[in-house]
Amino acid sequence: MEQIQRRGLMYVLSSPSGAGKTTISRALLGNNPDMTISVSVTTRKIRAGEVHGQDYYFVEHDDFRDMVDNGEMLEHAKVFDNYYGTPRQPVEKSLSEGKDVIFDIDWQGTQQLAEIARDDLVTVFILPPSRTELEKRLRHRSRDTRETEAEIRGRMSKAADEISHYSEYDYVIINEDIDRAIEKAQLILDAERIRRERMVGLSEFVRGLREGL
Amino acid sequence: MEQIQRRGLMYVLSSPSGAGKTTISRALLGNNPDMTISVSVTTRKIRAGEVHGQDYYFVEHDDFRDMVDNGEMLEHAKVFDNYYGTPRQPVEKSLSEGKDVIFDIDWQGTQQLAEIARDDLVTVFILPPSRTELEKRLRHRSRDTRETEAEIRGRMSKAADEISHYSEYDYVIINEDIDRAIEKAQLILDAERIRRERMVGLSEFVRGLREGL
Repeated sequence: MEQIQRRGLMYVLSSPSGAGKTTISRALLGNNPDMTISVSVTTRKIRAGEVHGQDYYFVEHDDFRDMVDNGEMLEHAKVFDNYYGTPRQPVEKSLSEGKDVIFDIDWQGTQQLAEIARDDLVTVFILPPSRTELEKRLRHRSRDTRETEAEIRGRMSKAADEISHYSEYDYVIINEDIDRAIEKAQLILDAERIRRERMVGLSEFVRGLREGL
Repeated sequence: MEQIQRRGLMYVLSSPSGAGKTTISRALLGNNPDMTISVSVTTRKIRAGEVHGQDYYFVEHDDFRDMVDNGEMLEHAKVFDNYYGTPRQPVEKSLSEGKDVIFDIDWQGTQQLAEIARDDLVTVFILPPSRTELEKRLRHRSRDTRETEAEIRGRMSKAADEISHYSEYDYVIINEDIDRAIEKAQLILDAERIRRERMVGLSEFVRGLREGL
């Protein structure tokens, strides 16, 4: 059989804080050796336990601004007082090699990616299983980071804001059970990989099939 | 967790004759007990081994015409000298019960379904692995049915015609290995079942999540 290649796809996972997005991303990376994740650039301060170049590229405001001005960001947005952005070069390299790239970004980044790369984009929104569970996870997380009540309220309001954009996504996974949620995320990836428009060289293959019939 | 229901989807499988579509349909029906298949109505003569109401509903030209005139067909088309059509009632019943329905139809039927039910439709085109294999399968099939060389040529020309429409489909499966092809067909089904727009009651669920945040 003639080999049908395909382009890499951009696999966006968005969710309110604490819905399991990071766990799902890591599982996908573990199960798909050829997949990479896009590491965002941010102006926010590095937190204990975070690693530069792994969790984020931590940069100064001026450097961030330069990257935007030089067209080095695929998308960027301001959240609270900090800027976040996706560096263009590593993404384009992976896609051109046929590798899929995970994006752990919010609705603002997703909207911007959709404008420039709708055909390569697959978007998944992760929801927590219930209101109670969501609040529990948001409060737990804030305990780890010693946030004030005002910061917790801010985080909740951001979660509500994020959730309101679920309807702009291709798929929704309700994360009731993390193993099942990972399974679904993998399933979506596998199916999207065999969409017709992602197969490169299909028209030549079909021309060969029809020859002389 | 609040139960998120979904609408049934219309799963179209098209292919040139002998590409494995029937085997794949049967496997899907076997693996998905809730799934049904749409049995087409045709004016062509019943063949040895075929069962009325299972392979097709075999009817007279006048009855077929009446069904079309009474709006009882979801789609219909003429192939060679025979008419083929999809009766509306069983499909609508299954979908309203949340059951998925398989359609083993050609590009003409698929185009008509797309016009009336784009949101519920998932379309898959099955291709044989090579030109040689396609011809072999077409000739083998004709041996079973004792076709003349003219009939074989007609079948080949119909295959070429069918294949030319592959680019109107959502997914393409190249059937090199039947087990792998069945696996892919199932994968597509599972992923499409969790598309956001197929989940009924999601907006109420999300409203509940955001309440008071």
